[in-house]
Amino acid sequence: MSYQPPVREHLFLLRDVLQIEKYANLPGFADAPLDLVEQILTEAAKFSAEVLAPLNAVGDKHGCTWNPDGSVTTPPGFKEAYKQFVEGGWPALGADPAFGGQGLPAVIAMASNEMSSSANMAFSMYPGLTHGAYSAIHAGGSDEQKALYLPKLASGQWGGTMNLTEPQCGTDLGLIRTKAAPAGDGSYRISGQKIWISSGEHDLAENIIHLVLARIEGAPGGTRGISLFIVPKFLPDADGNPGARNQVSCLGLEEKMGIHGNATCVMSHEAATGWLIGEENRGLAIMFVMMNEARLGVGMQGLAQGEAAYQAAAQFAKERLQGRSLTGPKNPDGPADSILVHPDVRRMLMDARAVLEAGRAFIFWTALHADLAQSDPDEGVRQKGEDYMALLTPVLKSYLTERGFQVASDAMQVHGGSGFTEHFPASQYLRDSRITLIYEGTNGVQALDLVGRKLPANGGRAVSAFMAEIDAFVAAHTADAAMKPFADGLAGAKAQLQEATLWLMQNGFANPDNAIAGSSDYLRLFGLTGLAYMWALMAKAANDKIAAGDADPFYANKLTVGRYFLERVLPDAGAALAKVKTGAETVMALPAEAF
Amino acid sequence: MSYQPPVREHLFLLRDVLQIEKYANLPGFADAPLDLVEQILTEAAKFSAEVLAPLNAVGDKHGCTWNPDGSVTTPPGFKEAYKQFVEGGWPALGADPAFGGQGLPAVIAMASNEMSSSANMAFSMYPGLTHGAYSAIHAGGSDEQKALYLPKLASGQWGGTMNLTEPQCGTDLGLIRTKAAPAGDGSYRISGQKIWISSGEHDLAENIIHLVLARIEGAPGGTRGISLFIVPKFLPDADGNPGARNQVSCLGLEEKMGIHGNATCVMSHEAATGWLIGEENRGLAIMFVMMNEARLGVGMQGLAQGEAAYQAAAQFAKERLQGRSLTGPKNPDGPADSILVHPDVRRMLMDARAVLEAGRAFIFWTALHADLAQSDPDEGVRQKGEDYMALLTPVLKSYLTERGFQVASDAMQVHGGSGFTEHFPASQYLRDSRITLIYEGTNGVQALDLVGRKLPANGGRAVSAFMAEIDAFVAAHTADAAMKPFADGLAGAKAQLQEATLWLMQNGFANPDNAIAGSSDYLRLFGLTGLAYMWALMAKAANDKIAAGDADPFYANKLTVGRYFLERVLPDAGAALAKVKTGAETVMALPAEAF
Repeated sequence: MSYQPPVREHLFLLRDVLQIEKYANLPGFADAPLDLVEQILTEAAKFSAEVLAPLNAVGDKHGCTWNPDGSVTTPPGFKEAYKQFVEGGWPALGADPAFGGQGLPAVIAMASNEMSSSANMAFSMYPGLTHGAYSAIHAGGSDEQKALYLPKLASGQWGGTMNLTEPQCGTDLGLIRTKAAPAGDGSYRISGQKIWISSGEHDLAENIIHLVLARIEGAPGGTRGISLFIVPKFLPDADGNPGARNQVSCLGLEEKMGIHGNATCVMSHEAATGWLIGEENRGLAIMFVMMNEARLGVGMQGLAQGEAAYQAAAQFAKERLQGRSLTGPKNPDGPADSILVHPDVRRMLMDARAVLEAGRAFIFWTALHADLAQSDPDEGVRQKGEDYMALLTPVLKSYLTERGFQVASDAMQVHGGSGFTEHFPASQYLRDSRITLIYEGTNGVQALDLVGRKLPANGGRAVSAFMAEIDAFVAAHTADAAMKPFADGLAGAKAQLQEATLWLMQNGFANPDNAIAGSSDYLRLFGLTGLAYMWALMAKAANDKIAAGDADPFYANKLTVGRYFLERVLPDAGAALAKVKTGAETVMALPAEAF
Repeated sequence: MSYQPPVREHLFLLRDVLQIEKYANLPGFADAPLDLVEQILTEAAKFSAEVLAPLNAVGDKHGCTWNPDGSVTTPPGFKEAYKQFVEGGWPALGADPAFGGQGLPAVIAMASNEMSSSANMAFSMYPGLTHGAYSAIHAGGSDEQKALYLPKLASGQWGGTMNLTEPQCGTDLGLIRTKAAPAGDGSYRISGQKIWISSGEHDLAENIIHLVLARIEGAPGGTRGISLFIVPKFLPDADGNPGARNQVSCLGLEEKMGIHGNATCVMSHEAATGWLIGEENRGLAIMFVMMNEARLGVGMQGLAQGEAAYQAAAQFAKERLQGRSLTGPKNPDGPADSILVHPDVRRMLMDARAVLEAGRAFIFWTALHADLAQSDPDEGVRQKGEDYMALLTPVLKSYLTERGFQVASDAMQVHGGSGFTEHFPASQYLRDSRITLIYEGTNGVQALDLVGRKLPANGGRAVSAFMAEIDAFVAAHTADAAMKPFADGLAGAKAQLQEATLWLMQNGFANPDNAIAGSSDYLRLFGLTGLAYMWALMAKAANDKIAAGDADPFYANKLTVGRYFLERVLPDAGAALAKVKTGAETVMALPAEAF
């Protein structure tokens, strides 16, 4: 059995937990009643399972091929699948109807993204980067640029990329050397080398629109002198069709541990023609629109790889017969019991469930806030939505990727020796998922963003609102016996998060290293608290269903996994708090030469 | 800079912490005064760094080649390196002088093994398996078998393997189907297929001695009917030289995620000639001699890969310039500071140090107990040595491999995007190290062994002795101000381990699943407690040096890393205890069909 898209989980979240029907007054939601959402997700599931998933191992084994003419051939089948993907209208799901998109809420697009990412992460990165380029132009482009590029990016007819990294410059974008010289006709000539450009060159789309960070001649040094440019592979002609070939080319592909099906390119710009997006020297602000969206998408990739890996492990565990249950044979007529009877195998599968189910809820819940930030008529709701998006993006990016990778590693462990061979999918999930902890800002950079920028922003308004919302939920449900364990667990986690937050505020002033030394552990504590809140919300929804007489075992199982979370995942919160409160002293004490 | 063998660390442990000069009255130790040990380790370091390490990436990229005649070609350079390895006498370091070995204590051989394993894990598996075969024949073979095989295995002239796994049978050896039929001349005809046989076929040695588990016709079912056989690739002739080719052949190689330089073989025995080792149907007992040795060796592999990965990450961190320290530029004349100034990068490097330095001490300390178990004149000391070996082997195998893999993953993280490419060594360390959590019994099987067998053995004698030893250390040093933090940390960890142990004993009776559901967390708690003890021992040694006026910053740095361990690693003990005490209820509650 291969990947089975978790549409049942998606519908539970959308209908019962987030209750998206409450938002039918908002654009996007208005056009997506639940029965239509179910239809869309069912179709997306079918496409992911039947078209994308069978190509996942193919992509891993074949990889991409760089040809001496600078072109790149994607793995067998990718081109045909991409054609179907575009024809099915999937790239346009969440795009603006003004530019040919379907205008569905982000929370629904997120469900669809999860499925394509689980089915084939390397493939789904091509449309993923395209959507990022779409969003940056949507946010910062001129009306002319929008009209020219957005419809073709929204449909997937053209692809998009982000050209940020250079050999000497990854996280520290102030070190960028790529140059832009005004050509006198409103365009620029872009020159420089970019590395690690995902989807930088391929044979899927008829054109590729590179968004390139570069420094205009005479611009200030550092990050204040960086501008963003549109550099198309083929320059659009007067009709907006691909015209002359631009001087941007792929010099080669990176050999890497995973995501072999996605072309990671060295890109050379040799006086390539580009057009400024937005104002001079303000490129990073627009690039961050793209980056923030990408970061949430990477969080989802981490989750999605975890989900696919979990499914493979669960299936293996049910089929592999080895040993006997310590409480008596469960398959007495067979040569052995399935390894699902062994508590330590269960533990790994339950860990996966406890984290994945709540992680999915957390990212959906946050995406819903992104929708509300866009279109809720109430300014307070919009502001809270924006605050939550800003605050939680680094948490979701890092925590879900770290846990997704852990799930993929545990999934390999469930497979035993089989998992280490390339005959089973566990290795690919482990290798593919590992990049999610690194790209779009390493997880440590996310932790720095959370503690250094997002927490103190607006006097701590976002984190205060998040904790107040939790307090209100706890107060409302602590008297309900069925909800009490969840309310208690949540209250405990929130108290620890609050203590850690206060500690960081008090001690980060004295020495900023004190705050950053604990930032990754603080982020984990934040992630655990968020998951505890999601389990409480899910438990409430499941309890309500059960109380209303719904006998679907789905709800009782949900409560079981939730209790497992409280007992066996949440205890890590205490350790994270203790680590946060140690500060920077021993972290920084060794002299550099001692490493 | 490539791998730098940590001889300074080895000498600190052997001289100052374990004080091996105290054992000069024992065989092995008598012939290895510290100056000779230093010479040997310095030579081993040179060989590892100069001959083995440069072949590590070569082995990964080229892998092994299966040829249509069933032969296997190892990666370029391996054959020459193996020849040098044998000529240098390295395989014989720990072997019995009666069979051509050098008879060095296990604790010293362990230091040498660490270095070859860090330098080139895939290569070092060839002599590693050979030593396992040596040990099994040494333990269970007849005098004739010993005389015939041991000198050639000890010298490395011949290689060795373990043939256990079959497609339907990994952990559950009772399912073995390979058959042995008496040939009437004292030999047997062995028939069956074995998979995942490390070093099963190669071009390094002139003969390969397979130790094969098989079922003699008519033997009882399950594990009580399994015998162990010697099946040489070439049957020894009357002079003990390789003679006729035996009917054992390699059908192909496994494609796997890592350790590409080691040939993982599908082996076919087609009425191959074999000789019984020991008694009929008692094969598992002898195989476990080999397996226990191998398990300790795998723990060392996990540590060794972590060490190599840490070194690569530390080097990268010192060289990569990106961003500025939050407390002011540390490299003001450069374009940026090295990333070593960032607390979250330090955190990952310090985590590695805190675990690797104490992990190395723990495995050396245990190997020393193995030496004492062999040769101490005091029966009580011998028994304690045996008890500790039995108790701690599963802890070291699982805990050090889990942490070693975590270090390798963090080392990739320190590299950022570079780490995910195959141009840097981080990917190979991550991929190679991952198998250590799986082979020689998965880490979950080790946890089951610890909780189900090793804890209750002899009424809990081993764990009681271990905890009493810790109590005595704490009592002796708690009044020493310099030692108090270490004594307190150790006492806290030991109290938690004791509480967890009692909980398991009390609740495992009612339902064995209760004990096993928490077995992996219990093992982690045991590992943390062991590391806390080792940090206390190392702190004592370092403090003594400092008190004696030794100004080498090595000792002050050791104390710093130790304090880091107490503050930022040991807090996980509380979470592990909490998880142990939840038992099996939620772990086992979901019906099988819900997975």
